[in-house]
Amino acid sequence: MSTVPENINELIAAQGNVVRSLKAQGAPKTEVDAQVSKLLELKNLKLGDAKNGSKKGTQFTLKTPKGTRDWAEKDVALREKIFGTVTDIFKRHGGVTLDTPVFELKEILTGKYGEDSKLIYDLKDQGGELCSLRYDLTVPFARWLAMNPKITSIKRFHIAKVYRRDQPAMTKGRMREFYQCDFDIAGTFDSMVADSEALKILVEALDALNVGKYTIKLNHRKILDGIFEVCGVPSDKIRTISSAVDKLDKMPWENVKEEMTEEKGLPEEVADRIGEYVLLKGGPELLAKLKADEKLSANKSASGAFEDMKLLFEYMENFGILDRFSFDMSLARGLDYYTGIIFEAVTEASAPKKIASKKDVKKSDDPEADRSNDDTIGVGSIAAGGRYDNLVGMFSSRKNAQLPCVGISLGLERIFSILRNRIPDDELRANEVEVYVMAFGGGKEWTGFLKERMNVCSELWAAGIKAEFLYKVKAKPRQQFEAADKYGVPVAVILGQDEFNGGNVRIKRMGQKENSDEGVLVPRASMVSELKKLLASL
Amino acid sequence: MSTVPENINELIAAQGNVVRSLKAQGAPKTEVDAQVSKLLELKNLKLGDAKNGSKKGTQFTLKTPKGTRDWAEKDVALREKIFGTVTDIFKRHGGVTLDTPVFELKEILTGKYGEDSKLIYDLKDQGGELCSLRYDLTVPFARWLAMNPKITSIKRFHIAKVYRRDQPAMTKGRMREFYQCDFDIAGTFDSMVADSEALKILVEALDALNVGKYTIKLNHRKILDGIFEVCGVPSDKIRTISSAVDKLDKMPWENVKEEMTEEKGLPEEVADRIGEYVLLKGGPELLAKLKADEKLSANKSASGAFEDMKLLFEYMENFGILDRFSFDMSLARGLDYYTGIIFEAVTEASAPKKIASKKDVKKSDDPEADRSNDDTIGVGSIAAGGRYDNLVGMFSSRKNAQLPCVGISLGLERIFSILRNRIPDDELRANEVEVYVMAFGGGKEWTGFLKERMNVCSELWAAGIKAEFLYKVKAKPRQQFEAADKYGVPVAVILGQDEFNGGNVRIKRMGQKENSDEGVLVPRASMVSELKKLLASL
Repeated sequence: MSTVPENINELIAAQGNVVRSLKAQGAPKTEVDAQVSKLLELKNLKLGDAKNGSKKGTQFTLKTPKGTRDWAEKDVALREKIFGTVTDIFKRHGGVTLDTPVFELKEILTGKYGEDSKLIYDLKDQGGELCSLRYDLTVPFARWLAMNPKITSIKRFHIAKVYRRDQPAMTKGRMREFYQCDFDIAGTFDSMVADSEALKILVEALDALNVGKYTIKLNHRKILDGIFEVCGVPSDKIRTISSAVDKLDKMPWENVKEEMTEEKGLPEEVADRIGEYVLLKGGPELLAKLKADEKLSANKSASGAFEDMKLLFEYMENFGILDRFSFDMSLARGLDYYTGIIFEAVTEASAPKKIASKKDVKKSDDPEADRSNDDTIGVGSIAAGGRYDNLVGMFSSRKNAQLPCVGISLGLERIFSILRNRIPDDELRANEVEVYVMAFGGGKEWTGFLKERMNVCSELWAAGIKAEFLYKVKAKPRQQFEAADKYGVPVAVILGQDEFNGGNVRIKRMGQKENSDEGVLVPRASMVSELKKLLASL
Repeated sequence: MSTVPENINELIAAQGNVVRSLKAQGAPKTEVDAQVSKLLELKNLKLGDAKNGSKKGTQFTLKTPKGTRDWAEKDVALREKIFGTVTDIFKRHGGVTLDTPVFELKEILTGKYGEDSKLIYDLKDQGGELCSLRYDLTVPFARWLAMNPKITSIKRFHIAKVYRRDQPAMTKGRMREFYQCDFDIAGTFDSMVADSEALKILVEALDALNVGKYTIKLNHRKILDGIFEVCGVPSDKIRTISSAVDKLDKMPWENVKEEMTEEKGLPEEVADRIGEYVLLKGGPELLAKLKADEKLSANKSASGAFEDMKLLFEYMENFGILDRFSFDMSLARGLDYYTGIIFEAVTEASAPKKIASKKDVKKSDDPEADRSNDDTIGVGSIAAGGRYDNLVGMFSSRKNAQLPCVGISLGLERIFSILRNRIPDDELRANEVEVYVMAFGGGKEWTGFLKERMNVCSELWAAGIKAEFLYKVKAKPRQQFEAADKYGVPVAVILGQDEFNGGNVRIKRMGQKENSDEGVLVPRASMVSELKKLLASL
């Protein structure tokens, strides 16, 4: 085990200078990297000394793995509140939860995520099956549907962690372990009915979460495909051109066009024709405009999608949610498996701080780098989704095994980041204790009323009231008040030595400005009912 | 890719006969195993053909990894109910939840689980840090406390999955991925106060879950240590002898004694002396008996623990929970880190069906074997826990960094297995929908009232009522009733063509024997309030 030199801080500072000057000189990467690792070793040595279990001869870094975090105290309380809000809405719409294992057989995930497959976490081969941590909740859902062919329709939701070995940007809610929150409707139904309820649920959730002003961009994959076809994009280039279009929220059109023509070899006039369409956005009137476009209307893919959108707009209007949406031709969505409507919700708070030019959006070469300070990364979209009719069939060889699906996915950690900044800290409580049971007394015969406090707490617990007492035989008043204040407990029940012996307890509001008030003396027998009245009024 | 022979079923049957006759002849294991793998290959081939995505040229087994399962429909509904029950109790006692990453740095887990470390799942080394899936929730809790030295006291609970590469016995709730449910109280308090509240919480939880008659065995590590010392067990053998004692719930004393003397080299007279103590059980009167034992009372470890137990029994009596416990000298608990009270709850339903002789409890050599049919394995204890005062210090080099802890762990999946067998299937509902909105009509002008059903649902959702409608433009009455019945929806709102046009809807109880009843016609304006009244009365 290495020992820590006394001048560790100076050594770190000196090594930091070495690294900086090499970088300034434009030294070769390998040379810089070698000095960076020396710097990291020194830092770890210091960290190890400060924090680790060196007593027992074990030396390790006391931290969570990169890109992961603990959720505790007020953070976890807010997150649970968010979970509760969306779960209520999902259940209100008939949702049932599905819980799949955190890892899947490796082959289940293979071939589902294209280029991003390199971000999948694998388990070590310790004998037996090869497994990988789930990358999203959609593939496990499709796998489950394929395994359970008797289920021909379901509304399922799933709130759980997924895993991606990506560059983290921790403070913006981009993590390697992060929560996804999906609601999907599977089944063969009349056109656009399930789609419109999915959008209704999305609006209800974003409204209930109170994320601030938001817009949901909406498009249809088959309209986009139609646009690409009539503009003359070769069919083998449609997906790659589509993913270039998807960058329009981060880059100006000029840069997207450059990517299409220079990188992806599209003739300039084709790109220009695309540009005339994809910058269009609006409401149902845009649909009329697109329909009036003769070439587009003659395209089979687009004209079928026009019928879908007409019906969808009707249902959305009926559900009273049309005003939250922008029919936006620039929305393309990355995932290959969408086959119908696609959508993505953004808030002002979730947008990147600066629009990047094409060069800026390149990732750092170091996959371990944290990108929290990269202003071209916003919190990202706070929700997204779409229709995917062919995914379940990929898991099944039965004929007609397709089970059409439409789903929404809420970016709960991004929503958390927004709300955590918005909600004043003192409005969040880490625990939910409603009553702190205290005892005051003195003199020689004063026992501390420990058992009496235990009894009163038992009575409150039995009545469903959340209550605590201090784990001391004789507790001082100040200690008890401080313990109650620490978690913002709103009410105290005080067992005064003489008052309690006389059959009474004192009920007192905590944390009020009128803290000098003495509370109300009530008979022990009516304590529970008085407390329930008071708690209901808070 | 292999193709499936047409006579696959006959091939499987024939190969099955080969295996059975080899077994009957007592053929050598290697020979049997070879034929078994041929059988499995055939079965996989068949399974692959029936279920897999062979269309796309991919061939894989459609399943979850060994020892894991999906939680869906009624199972997940019951499990969520169990989670809700215990979460309410934990919060009532001031618990706050902590959520740690599903994997930890490998070194955090190293050296915490003794022999069982071989059961830890590692992540593959894909560059960067080496990580392992968590093995329990206690070590991550201790790691978190050590990382957050400002937290000097907390009641934390954590319900989450943990991972062990052990032999699964799926139907008995022994899985490789399974839920743990922990409530721990950390902090330096007056003696036994937190311990007694932990036991109170355990009793409240088991009562509320309605698991049937249960007993909680209770002991104190330091009494056991004292017993071993006065009986003459060498100090380096105390832990291994303790783990032999722990098997007394599975084997008769004779076999345990044999293990102590023959395997672990303890002199017979020492084992006999131990036998006089560890078969004792009772209540507080046993404590008096042990105190009266002069040798034991003279032992420092035991006499300190006697003081603890005296106080604990007082507090337990005060909390009204004493009658649920058996003070049991045979309870030793496997984990090394306990330093004070230890306890374990068993029900009749959770006991093994037969007491094993020593040879029976040996595991199969094949770690992939499922032991569901092994009668010597019960569902196991349904809850357990104890005091561990030194674990947090193992993660910290600060002086006095110890943070004493006492905790309970509920075996929620074992409790699930018991309750799933007890609760009639039709008492469980997969979803929580309260109202199914239907439309009946006919004739040429009949539109199907899709938008009207959407509107009524919107109104119900806005009022917090869980409601669904069928995703069809024109839905037949029978289809709508079947959809409602499928999930046991208790109430229907019926939009009759004429009635609805006249401003009324019909509210009808579903699934009643008096199913012929027509329901009640109410004005649309009072629909929500009428429904709320009806739903509250169910």
